[in-house]
Amino acid sequence: MNSQPNDSQTDFQGPVCPVPLRDYPEVVLGHGSGGQLTQELIAHLFVPAFGSPELEQLGDAAVLSLAGGQVALATDSFVVQPLFFPGGDIGQLAVHGTINDLAMMGAKPVALAAAFILEEGFSMETLARVVQSMARAAKAAGVSIVTGDTKVVQRGHGDGCYITTTGLGLVRSRVPPAPQRVVPGDAVLLSGTVADHGMAVMSVRQGLEFEAPIRSDTAPLHELVAAMFQACPEIHALRDPTRGGLAAALNEIAQAAGVGIQIDDQAVPVDPVVASACEMLGLDPLAVANEGKLVAFVPQEHASRVLEAMRNHPLGRRAALIGHAVADHPGTVVARTAVGATRVITTQLGEALPRIC
Amino acid sequence: MNSQPNDSQTDFQGPVCPVPLRDYPEVVLGHGSGGQLTQELIAHLFVPAFGSPELEQLGDAAVLSLAGGQVALATDSFVVQPLFFPGGDIGQLAVHGTINDLAMMGAKPVALAAAFILEEGFSMETLARVVQSMARAAKAAGVSIVTGDTKVVQRGHGDGCYITTTGLGLVRSRVPPAPQRVVPGDAVLLSGTVADHGMAVMSVRQGLEFEAPIRSDTAPLHELVAAMFQACPEIHALRDPTRGGLAAALNEIAQAAGVGIQIDDQAVPVDPVVASACEMLGLDPLAVANEGKLVAFVPQEHASRVLEAMRNHPLGRRAALIGHAVADHPGTVVARTAVGATRVITTQLGEALPRIC
Repeated sequence: MNSQPNDSQTDFQGPVCPVPLRDYPEVVLGHGSGGQLTQELIAHLFVPAFGSPELEQLGDAAVLSLAGGQVALATDSFVVQPLFFPGGDIGQLAVHGTINDLAMMGAKPVALAAAFILEEGFSMETLARVVQSMARAAKAAGVSIVTGDTKVVQRGHGDGCYITTTGLGLVRSRVPPAPQRVVPGDAVLLSGTVADHGMAVMSVRQGLEFEAPIRSDTAPLHELVAAMFQACPEIHALRDPTRGGLAAALNEIAQAAGVGIQIDDQAVPVDPVVASACEMLGLDPLAVANEGKLVAFVPQEHASRVLEAMRNHPLGRRAALIGHAVADHPGTVVARTAVGATRVITTQLGEALPRIC
Repeated sequence: MNSQPNDSQTDFQGPVCPVPLRDYPEVVLGHGSGGQLTQELIAHLFVPAFGSPELEQLGDAAVLSLAGGQVALATDSFVVQPLFFPGGDIGQLAVHGTINDLAMMGAKPVALAAAFILEEGFSMETLARVVQSMARAAKAAGVSIVTGDTKVVQRGHGDGCYITTTGLGLVRSRVPPAPQRVVPGDAVLLSGTVADHGMAVMSVRQGLEFEAPIRSDTAPLHELVAAMFQACPEIHALRDPTRGGLAAALNEIAQAAGVGIQIDDQAVPVDPVVASACEMLGLDPLAVANEGKLVAFVPQEHASRVLEAMRNHPLGRRAALIGHAVADHPGTVVARTAVGATRVITTQLGEALPRIC
């Protein structure tokens, strides 16, 4: 590792709250959590340095005008540990995760690039299982893996297998969904239960056993999104609540749109086994990662139509209206609890569940 | 690391030479070398599993029809160690390397995605230097970094900073250059000296001192390529000889096109300091990585025009005609030596210089 003097005058303070980056002289796990520390790294370092208008949108994917159409580009590295978990594996996740980032821009996924960073000594059989799982997931989703790269690092400088997938998609609507389009009054729709993926991975890592096994919800969401757009082209924003969970997704949208968000705790579907696992580990299900769920903001007058379309799709059967965007408390997400009190839902600072995807 | 049984019936033998993959139960450094072991991994595992026509082309980038035009998609992970070396750093390399992969398909680079895998404890100042170097390189090349991702892994599971960049480009010509288009008689043009990048990195790693410092040749080649296409749209194949060097690039083309290649050892420009460094370390300059050079196959009748265009560009000043594609010995590359003998130029099996990019 290098630690040469910073000759490039980084403004670690920058104009953005909350914590100045210089308070972290070293990268900590939380910088990869999808929580506040990740947002800070993006706001203080990546956006000022790269300074492209697409990056500033902070979407799940960038939308570009190209070759007379609009295309979406999304990239994601996968470092989940263990590589195999109930309901999925790193290969599937690497395909679904990037497809979903494209889908959240209303794009139809077309092609994937796959880059592997392998650790010397990694089992060739295991690599083959991962690659074949990726191939199956891509085929099932109707997406081609068209190019790739392989690097190998010495023992002790990796963890078996890291995969970076980058997806290219065709944007369907002229005005793609974006957090900035959310307005007070919009209904908040959630496609199903939360926290399944995070708790599936945690249960393997911790060796926990529950009355029923918890399975990851990993799934490609582009067809669910297509069905929703067919029901109503007026979808203001879409987000797949992965790292940081529903809490982080809602906070990002509240802040980007300058609206408040009110949700009803009781309306958020959580599988009972997952709920008790969360309680046992002291985790809020709203802050736990999902890999096959989305949250949508739609005008209230279209909410029931979109909800119906979601429920008619296998990946949206338990879809629910969980709340609304409001003019009050802009930038803040609050939940009404079972006993009628309200609590503020914050984005976690750092890493409750490291390397969850 | 996992080593669960292979339930997916991988055909490690497959129909492709040379060494069956099952002879390597574990990933070795050579699988990331760009040499024969990498080719074998691609041929026995990735291509059969993913089975897309674009991947089978084995180009530096995939070419796709999209939105009424042709776009190119290329991805590359960068794991070079050390992160900073004379003439460049991992950030620059990550931008140039992917731009060059697009350029080799005759594509104009449009946008880059950047995914970081950081190791817990990595210096924030060093990260800032890397990011700002990327930003400068992208700006200088006229390419936007439009989207990204950051993951953090625990200490001992990374090496400071790995970067995966994926590039999207617009293909200029209706029939993009491809190894398969090479025919006997084509002239082989090289844009400048070889082995500079590899020896720059090696000299830092080994703490070697020479009469003059060896600097990496890292550079974006898309404008040189544009100038070449302007001089002659009939460029059959382009390759940037990175990992595995010129030897690997020529062998890949010879095999893909089913032609022989004859080059003249004396015609290949090598900086004298680099040449003696190679000699000292027992390395063939033809097998050492470059990051700002290209090799082009063009019909003999256009060779002098293309060569002139190359020499008129700052990145092609030392361009040279180094040989020809021939009908003899298909799939094999031979060089005429200084004493008039011929030697066969093979692709190295594995890794002479690990983690060179």
